Amino acid sequence: MSSDGTSTAAHDFDAAIALASSGDNEAQGQTHPAYGNMVGPFGGVIAATLLNAVLRHPELLGQPVSQTVHFAAPIADGGFTVQTRVMRTNRTTQHWHVELIQNGEVAAFATTVTAVRRETWAALDAAFPEVPPASSIAPSPHIARAAWTGRYEMRFIDGAPGAPDTPSDSSQSTMWIRDTPERPLDYQSLAALCDAFYPRIFVRRPKWVPIGTVALTTFFHADAAQLAAQGSAPLLGVARALRFGNGFFDQSAEMWSERGELLATSHQVVYFKE
Amino acid sequence: MSSDGTSTAAHDFDAAIALASSGDNEAQGQTHPAYGNMVGPFGGVIAATLLNAVLRHPELLGQPVSQTVHFAAPIADGGFTVQTRVMRTNRTTQHWHVELIQNGEVAAFATTVTAVRRETWAALDAAFPEVPPASSIAPSPHIARAAWTGRYEMRFIDGAPGAPDTPSDSSQSTMWIRDTPERPLDYQSLAALCDAFYPRIFVRRPKWVPIGTVALTTFFHADAAQLAAQGSAPLLGVARALRFGNGFFDQSAEMWSERGELLATSHQVVYFKE
Repeated sequence: MSSDGTSTAAHDFDAAIALASSGDNEAQGQTHPAYGNMVGPFGGVIAATLLNAVLRHPELLGQPVSQTVHFAAPIADGGFTVQTRVMRTNRTTQHWHVELIQNGEVAAFATTVTAVRRETWAALDAAFPEVPPASSIAPSPHIARAAWTGRYEMRFIDGAPGAPDTPSDSSQSTMWIRDTPERPLDYQSLAALCDAFYPRIFVRRPKWVPIGTVALTTFFHADAAQLAAQGSAPLLGVARALRFGNGFFDQSAEMWSERGELLATSHQVVYFKE
Repeated sequence: MSSDGTSTAAHDFDAAIALASSGDNEAQGQTHPAYGNMVGPFGGVIAATLLNAVLRHPELLGQPVSQTVHFAAPIADGGFTVQTRVMRTNRTTQHWHVELIQNGEVAAFATTVTAVRRETWAALDAAFPEVPPASSIAPSPHIARAAWTGRYEMRFIDGAPGAPDTPSDSSQSTMWIRDTPERPLDYQSLAALCDAFYPRIFVRRPKWVPIGTVALTTFFHADAAQLAAQGSAPLLGVARALRFGNGFFDQSAEMWSERGELLATSHQVVYFKE
């Protein structure tokens, strides 16, 4: 069910993040081939699944404010168990810990803050980039070996994955992105979209090396009304790295609506081999 | 013990983050008045304490790569229990979950990635700000009601806490900062320094409202050699918010050495009342 109440049961994303309760704080999930990565599932859909475990929980208070996901070990294609624990419930905020278990071991885990949000003073300090409209840019071809890239329509303004021998002095990419087929935005899909940027090292350096996100933090700025207004329109995503070295780099992203609302910001640290 | 092996047992910071083992994965700590905040302890020293629980653990693999701290409820001045759990150990990376418990309830918790880091290709995409040297700027006066501010020497280049009736169109602060008395930098103190920026809302809007960090993520870029080279020299810190609204704002910071090395980046989400 999306934020605007439309049934989206037929969308593969909903199947990919679906959980079936097997206890008060336990549920069963399954990776989905439509969101497969080169090895195992796309991390963004795992983040969305772990957020879904919180959002479907009977004790939920409010809406997501932040989520941190640890990708602790490779996740195998197939089934998994999700265990959810309310760490603390306050008057207007709540803290969560969620584990994804395969073969008796923790393969991923997430912490989340949810809150009852009320209208307050507001200000936007980030600058909305001046970019051409999505309709003026052709979608980028998908990467056949990473099925999940076929589930997103990406239109690059800059920082498209380059020719394999083209170095760049910038790790920034700017793109219009939305689910394909179209799907109204909700917190789960927003969580996944924040991880849908190609690893910055491949924009910066034209060399293929094994990489993997180890930890991903997303801050949700959008409220339910903004999500509903967004519908399935494209989001403007901007991502960059600040520092590469000693086997890791960081990567930060902003996700904007077409109207210049900052819907989410996200920060991850990524392992790379050499 | 600091990163260069010098004994710093006499420094209040070491007393503030000290833990006494009371089991294989359990230890006892105590808030320290020198690092008190207006209510309860300074969050940065709690982050440092929870990182210390990992770094002193006999099963530790490597050095910190990232830490996320949830400030789940107010922490009372006095004693607390810290429980540490290794979530997953891989060949070169390790994932941790640490809880701070008071009166039988979780008041804070943290997740951490540690890793054996090896020299790889490196690049710096963030720009080191052009600023005057620390010695040319007078330290800012401390805030008497927040004892912890007396434990840091802050020299503001811009974004000093303003007169109470001065609004600003920017939430950015740039400052030289170090521990006072001086103390050689280690991962624990770096974790605390990342939280030593005044809440951005007080830079942006001249109105006092109750605030509190709910979640804080820090990425550690510095290796042990860089920490040792830093010693007790001032760090250059830059912080800004991107978005305020519906009772929360985000705040990002970079911590630099005088030589232009990016030592850490940090991102937090902060509650504000109105």
